[in-house]
Formats: sequence, structure tokens, C-alpha cells
Amino acid sequence: MQRLKNTDPDFEAKFAKIVEARRESSQDVGRDVFDILARVKAMGDKALVEYTTRFDQHNLTNDNDWMIAPDQCKAAYDALDADLRDALQLAADRIQAYHEDQLPHDRDYTDDAGVRLGAKWRPVDAAGLYVPGGRAAYPSSLLMNAIPAKVAGVERLAIVTPTPKGETNPLVLAAAHIVGVDEIWRVGGAQAIGALAYGTDRIERVDVITGPGNAWVAEAKRQLYGVVGIDMVAGPSEILVIADGKNDPDWIAADLLSQAEHDPTSQSILITDDADFAEQVEDRVDVQSAMLATRKVARESWDAHGVLIVVEDLEQAIPLANRLAAEHVELAVDDPEALMGKLHHAGSIFLGRMVPEAVGDYVAGPNHVLPTGRRARFASGLSVLDFMKRTSFISMDKAGLEAIGPAAIKLAHAEGLPAHAASIELRLKT
Amino acid sequence: MQRLKNTDPDFEAKFAKIVEARRESSQDVGRDVFDILARVKAMGDKALVEYTTRFDQHNLTNDNDWMIAPDQCKAAYDALDADLRDALQLAADRIQAYHEDQLPHDRDYTDDAGVRLGAKWRPVDAAGLYVPGGRAAYPSSLLMNAIPAKVAGVERLAIVTPTPKGETNPLVLAAAHIVGVDEIWRVGGAQAIGALAYGTDRIERVDVITGPGNAWVAEAKRQLYGVVGIDMVAGPSEILVIADGKNDPDWIAADLLSQAEHDPTSQSILITDDADFAEQVEDRVDVQSAMLATRKVARESWDAHGVLIVVEDLEQAIPLANRLAAEHVELAVDDPEALMGKLHHAGSIFLGRMVPEAVGDYVAGPNHVLPTGRRARFASGLSVLDFMKRTSFISMDKAGLEAIGPAAIKLAHAEGLPAHAASIELRLKT
Repeated sequence: MQRLKNTDPDFEAKFAKIVEARRESSQDVGRDVFDILARVKAMGDKALVEYTTRFDQHNLTNDNDWMIAPDQCKAAYDALDADLRDALQLAADRIQAYHEDQLPHDRDYTDDAGVRLGAKWRPVDAAGLYVPGGRAAYPSSLLMNAIPAKVAGVERLAIVTPTPKGETNPLVLAAAHIVGVDEIWRVGGAQAIGALAYGTDRIERVDVITGPGNAWVAEAKRQLYGVVGIDMVAGPSEILVIADGKNDPDWIAADLLSQAEHDPTSQSILITDDADFAEQVEDRVDVQSAMLATRKVARESWDAHGVLIVVEDLEQAIPLANRLAAEHVELAVDDPEALMGKLHHAGSIFLGRMVPEAVGDYVAGPNHVLPTGRRARFASGLSVLDFMKRTSFISMDKAGLEAIGPAAIKLAHAEGLPAHAASIELRLKT
Repeated sequence: MQRLKNTDPDFEAKFAKIVEARRESSQDVGRDVFDILARVKAMGDKALVEYTTRFDQHNLTNDNDWMIAPDQCKAAYDALDADLRDALQLAADRIQAYHEDQLPHDRDYTDDAGVRLGAKWRPVDAAGLYVPGGRAAYPSSLLMNAIPAKVAGVERLAIVTPTPKGETNPLVLAAAHIVGVDEIWRVGGAQAIGALAYGTDRIERVDVITGPGNAWVAEAKRQLYGVVGIDMVAGPSEILVIADGKNDPDWIAADLLSQAEHDPTSQSILITDDADFAEQVEDRVDVQSAMLATRKVARESWDAHGVLIVVEDLEQAIPLANRLAAEHVELAVDDPEALMGKLHHAGSIFLGRMVPEAVGDYVAGPNHVLPTGRRARFASGLSVLDFMKRTSFISMDKAGLEAIGPAAIKLAHAEGLPAHAASIELRLKT
């Protein structure tokens, strides 16, 4: 854990290092993934069988080795505690409402030149959703990925998820039941991404692939970008809390730990204008983390990547926050609105003292799939737009072509493209 | 050139082959590009000097070897024929108007649970635009890439363009003057993309890179996807014309050739319900192409990739068109609107007999940077959204947290994330 003051002479050098640090695993998986994808493309289901036996110790023999049936999802849902079922349903309903509000509007208008112009949005035909197995198998991730696709109007949604030694996660199945996804394949890793992108005899190919995964999954998506659409390249998660000294240090410590407990590569940063408060938060992190069932991961993350920054004035936090372009930013201050107006780069902003980031992970409604690793400079959280595309259209009659065609003819000739010019000239001649 | 009938017994096999064909150069540039990018990252400007001498025979010594000055752009603009200047200006004005209409709206509302939710859109800070040198140096491309960035509100726009043996393209400089881009670097290739993404002493890094380029440029963008935002992976251009027999075959032939003259890898496809008309179009392509200054490229494209498909009924064209998901689709029929309603996958649609695709390349207003190679299944044309990103935000008071917090606590515990739960529990306890 690092303690910095923005008045330290070496602050800029240290802060720049934090901004540039990628924290990603240094494993070079590119070559492995390239080979796996080539093999899946060439051999299809046969390659899936081989890799699944090898990596997941799961044999894909009968149909129910390949797929999880809808009635298994329903059974998992029915077996849940009523409280937990209601919580999942509330989350699903709120996520759905927020994403319905994102649906884009078509455009269709005729301008002064008499030219009709527009754009229409359509869902993709099929989306593939990766759901990790093991520790990171979160039902909330399934909701956050599947619901925007459903809201966008995607007709076919295919989930791929590894089931190591055949084990499934009942919460994930229950979430699939709630969203109504009934195509769930028991394959994972780069090979599952390859199957979704290229298609196999059993698994029909999709148009867009989203969802979190390990380094192999992320690299497979990156390599297949362009063959299919993908959501953002995701890196380790992060939170930036900007807080004055009037907060309860226990609350802020819990917020920092809620990020740290995700993964050893996660990062939690506090910027405050109150040095005493920073110390209190540090103490509370130590006390709270010792009691967590997730303490090993949380401590590893906090010790390696945690940062406490003391500034003289919270206004000074803003340029630092814009450079970090963090995935999650909490503004625990009296007037969070004023700071938000100047915060240009962030995945999601949590306004005020009563909004811990965790509430956004589950039930607030906005998507929790957000840009990491400074990518909020140019990328957005997952939305219905990731499952849709826009087609522009142009229409005009002869008067319209007479109004704007001659300029196009000029430009076509200037660019050395005579057939372009001819296609307009012929129509204007009549 | 292939002639197909959808009643031929082998039609499906042949059509499927056309759908799957990538037409991309088979050159494996991945390794070269990887090395170039690594060298630019490590050595910065020194690597740019080396590569530019080697690939462009241009020495980057003095400041004016590195950059094209704004007064050179103004001089190029002033030297243009008035007609051409007006044509460029009309194009710029219409592109700007269409893209202004695309600007997204922020959201900010409070729902029934008393939770305030929203999203705000912001431009990226800096965008880099690749403008090819040589044959494909089109001023229209500069307008189509730079204007959406300007409309989005991007403050810094940096153009990179190779100037082989020091030569510049006056039309491109004039277009830069019209749009008001004043940072133009005389570097190209993968090394220019690397400089924009990583930054060098001279060239400050950008957040998003767009613009067409050769195989090296496209591969460099693909490899840097995630380090920066990029526009779509672009492949060879294509047009699909769906036409009945009531069209002038000369018009349709010119439309097919306008695509073919772009590049030997371009593809022009006609689907018609009139076999005689298809033959007439084929004749007119032969006659017209013989007279074109671009005949060599146009014939090469048409002979290798041109397709004439005769169907029994134009309704049968629609599923074929959806499988092709073509970049440009002309609907030269009596009721183009009816066909458009069923055409789900296309980059841009040209409605009716009086709308040659070329008018969209220059002056109609919608962007001419469009998804190719079946990518219209999941991707959209370039828009202001490519230069913006969305930040979600969440706010609530204690009553709001009491309404939705308990469900989040349930889910956090179920996912094995106790610090997530604690961050909410602590606030609800007070």
C-alpha cells in the first residue's frame, strides 16, 4: 500500500507510475490462444471435446454433457431461498428498467435540399455470453450481460460456461432461468469463444460475444474482434474514492475492501483532503480486513495496489481522477454534483455518502460491466448498444439529386473515380 | 464474374462460398506489425525517423519535415478551383448536419424507489486520424473521419499521413483546412498508429484512432485495440444492388463499376428478378468499363468478384441480402421502403432508382466509413459515438438505500463477497 501527498516532491513521478501500471498478468497467452482458436476452427466439436476433457475434466459425450437443460435452471431457481430469489428478481427488474431507457431512437427526416436521411437501429441476430466457472461465477454477471441483450431484442442468446468436473453453479442457473436464456453450453476457455465465433456442428455461431473471463478468454475475444463484435477488453477492476474528512472511516474502508476482495490484481485508491482521515481509514482497513472471509485476496490486493493520496484541496483530486479514468468513482463529499461536473473520465460515478459502489454491482440498475485500466478515457460500460447496430439510409428524387449530385461529381473526378461520377451523371442526364 | 440463379441446384453451395469469402490479402503482416509497434513504444521518435526514411523515403529532420503547417493547408485550399472548393464545403456542411443529429442525450431521472440514475456522454480528449497517402488519399475520407470527431466535441485532433518522398496531396490539405485540423504529422504505416497510441516526445498520444489504411495500418489498429479505442476493422468494400427490370441497365452498370473501381478486392453484386435485365447490365458493364480511366482496377474487381444473381421474385433477395450484410445496398425498385423493412443487416441503404451509392460517398451526409465483410451483422458506420463515451451515475439517500440495499446484501453474501455486503450494512445500521 502506498501513501502519497500531492505536495511531495516526487508525487508526480509516483502518481504517473500508478496511472501507467497495468496490473495485468504478464503471462503471454497469445500463442496458446491462437493455436486453440485455429484448432476449434478446423476441427469444431472434436476440438471442444478434447479441450474440455483436458482443461475442465469434463467429458462431452451425451447431449446433457454438452448442455444444461432449461428444467435444470428452473429446478435451481425453485430451490433458492425465497429471500435470495426475490433479491435476484429485484436486481433483474431494475437492470431491465435502466437498460430499457437506453434503447436508441431511429431517425428519419427530409432536409432543406429535399434529401431524406435517417438511421435505423436493429438488434444483432445472436449473442454469445461467457459466464466463468469457479470462484468468479457470479449470477449478477449473468444478469448484467444477458438483460441488455434481451432488452436490445436479440432473438438468440447462447451462454457458454465451463463446468469443471461437471459441477454447475446453482445461482448462475437460477439467474439464467430468470432472464429466460435456454441455450447453455458446458464449455469454457478460449475454445468456447472460438466455438461461438466460428460455429461448430453443435454450436451455431453468434454475432457478438460479451462477458468476463480469465486471461485466455479475454485474449480469445481480442483475437476474434472483427470476426464478431465483442465488449471491451477487460482488465483488473478498480475503485477511486474521493472523500472529505466528514465521512465515517469505517464506511470508506469497507468500500475500498469491497474492491480489493474481488481479486489480488484489483486496485483501491482513496483521495482525501484530510490526512487524519486517511490514517483512520487505513486503520479501519486493517481491522475490517482481518475479519473478512475474503481476507487473503483483499489483503493481497490492498498491500500490492492500495493507494492513499492526501491533497490540500479536493478540487485537486479532479485532474488526478481524470488521469486515472477509474472504473468506479465514489464522490463522498457535501456537493458531489459539483465534482461530477468536472470529472470527465470514469466508468461509473457514485454520488454522495450513502452510495457504496457495491449497490451498483447488484441492484441499482446501471451495468456493472465497465471500462477498466484507464479505458474510461474512450470506452463505456456495457449497454443495449453493444447488442445493436445502426443502418443509415438515403433517399431522394431527381430534384434532390440535382441539388447535391453535381458537387459529388466534382469530388469524384477530383479523386480520380470516374465511374462514381458517371453513376450520378447518367441519372441527371435524363 | 459469376452468374447464378437461385433455382440452380448448386446455388446454395455457391452462394455460401460468396458469403464466406473474405477477399482480404493473405499477407501475414501480424509479426511485422508487432515488431514495428514494439520498436515505436521503446524508441519513440527515433523509430519513426528510421521507418519513415525506409518506407516513405522521407527524412524527418526539421520541424517542417515532421509536420504540415496550417498555412500550407490554407494555401492548398486557396489554390483550388472555386467549384471544387464549393463542392468540398457542401460535403463538409452536409456531413456536419447529419452528424450533429447523432449527438446523444444525457439521462438523469429518479425512479419509484427514490434512486437517482443517469448517464452522461463526453467526448474523448484526443482523437488520431489516419489519412492514407498515394492512390487512396481521399479528401472525402478526411471529412468523414474528422467531422464526427469535431461534432462530438473532441478538443484535439491529430492527423497522421505518409508523404512518400515528401509529396503531399493538396486536396487532403484543403479538406484539413475546411475542417480546421491543424496538427498534421508526416508519418504513416503501422509506426504512425503506434505513435498515436503510445505517444512519443513529439506526438502526444490520443484516446481513439480512426481512418482507413493498408493491411499494416489495419493490423496495427487491431493489435492496439484496448490500448486505444478504434473504429471497426475494415476490409474490402462492397455493393449489393437489388433491382427490378424497370431500371436503366446503364445506371445499374455504373453503380456496380463505381464500387469495382475502388480496388481489385472490391465486390459488386446485382440481384434481380429479370434475367434479360441481368444480361443487359452485364453488357453495359463491359461497354462502360472499357472507357474508364480506372478500367484496370474495375475489370480486375468485376472479373474476380462480380456476381449477377437472378431470383424468381425480389422477395427472395431479402434473405440473401441479410446473409451478405453488405456495406452498401441499393434498392432500385418501385417500393424500396417495403424491402428496407425486411433488410436487417446492411451498412447503408440507398432507397429508390435516383440514389446511386456514389452520392453517399461524398455529399449526402451519412458517414461513408461503413462495416464491410459481413460485419454489418454486428457493427455500425462511423458516428459521433465513436468519439464519445458514456459515464453512468447513481445517487440515493438513506431511504433509497433502505429500499434496495438489503437485496444487494443478500446477493453479495451469496456470491461470497462479504466486504461488498459490509459496505451497505454499515450505512444501513446508522
